[in-house]
Amino acid sequence: MKIYSYTNLSKQKIEDICLRTLEDDAAIAERVGQIINQVKTTGDQALLDYAGQFDGVKLERLFLDEQEIETIASEIPQDAREAIETAYANIRMFHAAQLKTEDKIETMPGVSCWRESRPISRVGLYIPGGSAVLPSTFLMLGIPAMLAGCEEIVVCSPPQKDGKTNCYLAYCAKLLGIKKIYLAGGAQAIAAMAYGTTSVPQVYKIFGPGNRYVTQAKQQILASGIAAIDMPAGPSEVLIIADRSASPAFVAADLLAQAEHGSDSQSILVSTSTELIAEVMQEIDNQISYLPRATVAAAAIANSYAVHCENLQQAMAFSNAYAPEHLILATEEFEALIPQISNAGSVFLGNLTPESAGDYASGTNHTLPTSGFAKAYSGVSTDSFLKKITFQHITPSGLKAIGPAVEILATAEGLQAHKNAITIRLKSTDGY
Amino acid sequence: MKIYSYTNLSKQKIEDICLRTLEDDAAIAERVGQIINQVKTTGDQALLDYAGQFDGVKLERLFLDEQEIETIASEIPQDAREAIETAYANIRMFHAAQLKTEDKIETMPGVSCWRESRPISRVGLYIPGGSAVLPSTFLMLGIPAMLAGCEEIVVCSPPQKDGKTNCYLAYCAKLLGIKKIYLAGGAQAIAAMAYGTTSVPQVYKIFGPGNRYVTQAKQQILASGIAAIDMPAGPSEVLIIADRSASPAFVAADLLAQAEHGSDSQSILVSTSTELIAEVMQEIDNQISYLPRATVAAAAIANSYAVHCENLQQAMAFSNAYAPEHLILATEEFEALIPQISNAGSVFLGNLTPESAGDYASGTNHTLPTSGFAKAYSGVSTDSFLKKITFQHITPSGLKAIGPAVEILATAEGLQAHKNAITIRLKSTDGY
Repeated sequence: MKIYSYTNLSKQKIEDICLRTLEDDAAIAERVGQIINQVKTTGDQALLDYAGQFDGVKLERLFLDEQEIETIASEIPQDAREAIETAYANIRMFHAAQLKTEDKIETMPGVSCWRESRPISRVGLYIPGGSAVLPSTFLMLGIPAMLAGCEEIVVCSPPQKDGKTNCYLAYCAKLLGIKKIYLAGGAQAIAAMAYGTTSVPQVYKIFGPGNRYVTQAKQQILASGIAAIDMPAGPSEVLIIADRSASPAFVAADLLAQAEHGSDSQSILVSTSTELIAEVMQEIDNQISYLPRATVAAAAIANSYAVHCENLQQAMAFSNAYAPEHLILATEEFEALIPQISNAGSVFLGNLTPESAGDYASGTNHTLPTSGFAKAYSGVSTDSFLKKITFQHITPSGLKAIGPAVEILATAEGLQAHKNAITIRLKSTDGY
Repeated sequence: MKIYSYTNLSKQKIEDICLRTLEDDAAIAERVGQIINQVKTTGDQALLDYAGQFDGVKLERLFLDEQEIETIASEIPQDAREAIETAYANIRMFHAAQLKTEDKIETMPGVSCWRESRPISRVGLYIPGGSAVLPSTFLMLGIPAMLAGCEEIVVCSPPQKDGKTNCYLAYCAKLLGIKKIYLAGGAQAIAAMAYGTTSVPQVYKIFGPGNRYVTQAKQQILASGIAAIDMPAGPSEVLIIADRSASPAFVAADLLAQAEHGSDSQSILVSTSTELIAEVMQEIDNQISYLPRATVAAAAIANSYAVHCENLQQAMAFSNAYAPEHLILATEEFEALIPQISNAGSVFLGNLTPESAGDYASGTNHTLPTSGFAKAYSGVSTDSFLKKITFQHITPSGLKAIGPAVEILATAEGLQAHKNAITIRLKSTDGY
């Protein structure tokens, strides 16, 4: 892990080390384009073929029905059931609080304007299930979709070797009231939800993480205009700001938790203390050897770096330039830093709030902007499953108040018919 | 204007007539790709060259400064000044009400989660200025950007023949406190804001309407991941639901107001009354001849259609399938229809609320999802200029409450380091 000194970094160098290059792999893009086209043209048959080819299973049918989900869900161990229920309750409480109705605003006497939310009626959730099964992702996407009131929630997850799904996902489906799980993974699942097949319903917006094929498929679907997506995605990342009040062991554990996701993950340490940086490095060495995914974590750590800053203000400046997906403030002074945060996906405050709490169960969403997208994007929330429609109503006296301004502006923009729509009403309002 | 009968339309036929094909013009895409690349590599020089080539002006400098803006703004006629001020006040009031702070949620004792909004620090606004100058667009984008607190608001608008901008835009800049207007239009303006040049600052999100070159440039910028955009865009459109309580003259005026935007605009009439449809057709014929943009409007009307429905429920079903950018409920029964609206950008209620009121001055935003994107996207609002960052804080007792659930879920997902980040803290909390 390379160590930089903030005061020695030029503006250009800061930009360079903050840059996460999204690999533009032409071979993957081309292959994904082929897969999308195949699903678009041959539908279910393509999904069955790809399940054989990529997942190694011969499927009879492309989904599990309610009864099958119920049976599989019943196999869940008691402790996992309780853990999922705890996570479910917390995530539900936090996301339910995001549902708001808004007041009508009378912008002028007789001119009322307001917004009302409506669910996106058909949404698609992609739940990865290759190297790891991710019940947490199912909760993070399924709960806000359900709270928003989406009529059709299409869930795709790759089939396991037995041609089914696992008990954790099945139990999540049961909790969420989702009656079908479509057994499709990868780019082909994204294509199926975007274009629809005989089995898989077409949706208007697609959510969920995945490997580079899934991510590339979502980008191509977005570009084609056929469906919206949650957000662009790159490898996961954490940035930890730590001062002398931090625990080197905790900081190392958090850096490693990020690092075990994949060798392209980044675990960035920003500290006001060179001693702490050294201690954290030592702790990483101590802890990493016990990890089942030590090789992956070691590669990610090698791909990461530490920045030594003179003070916490410099540390925050660096963090805002990096715009991390996850930001941990491993300092007792976190309160003072909150107003200085401008770019981050989700923030973990103090020494007892690890990222993994938010990954699973604290209540916040774990679908967050990576790769610097936190400069312009928010993470997934209940809002992501809603549209806000504006409404307006004008009374006869409102029309008289607002009409002349509209007529003048329409004329200034050379749009005579826009003006006429007002004039013709104004002329007739004496009759109202 | 073709007339369909809803009850005779098959599901497939409804899909077909609701489809707005976004023309995939390979020649435009290629040309825009070249322009973007030229701006990316040669910066200001490319902008100066394109101003000569496309706008027919030789610029000395790529922006107007505060003093120049002030001078140009002083030329605004008194009535236009007052009209802009009325629009400004209404739009500001409606968008200011969208700024909200949210409560902290204690999802479990000792586990607090909340969201805080932060402005997108650098945003770019594209204000068209070719065939028409659009002060209304400047207000619709500038006001929420200012309210959100965006630090750098970069405004690009093509130079007029005199190498300046017009007095309406200059006056809007003055009201908004914007001190520079960059004199760049078309795809080159979008590229300049995405990549930055010596003169034009780089931004993280780009807003604004434009011709097909501008729209294509925004799509390519989005696909490259270099900046976010407000939303995908296609030609403008209105759908009017009208019953016998509607005025044929008002409906015709509203259809024509939409039609004058461009020959590819759609003006859709959905009515429960064949008599009203006939009367509206007659009124269109009467009114169109007086329009300066009659040829454009006639082409758009020819490109549009009417649908006769048995009742307002059928009309709403058709409207939701179409997902119009603008929906006018030209009926006295609009209240009962509001809950049935699921897909629309902005809704105009009753016979005295023309779309042009919302285009300019009622207070709602006129940057709205076209081409069926209203199924998944909202229009521009103050939210569009903000990100919501999630925060969480866990106390020692909170960690004990939530810890076991996180440990079990991390283990279920095979992520041992995620579990360790909890375990190592739980082990030490006796010391807290």
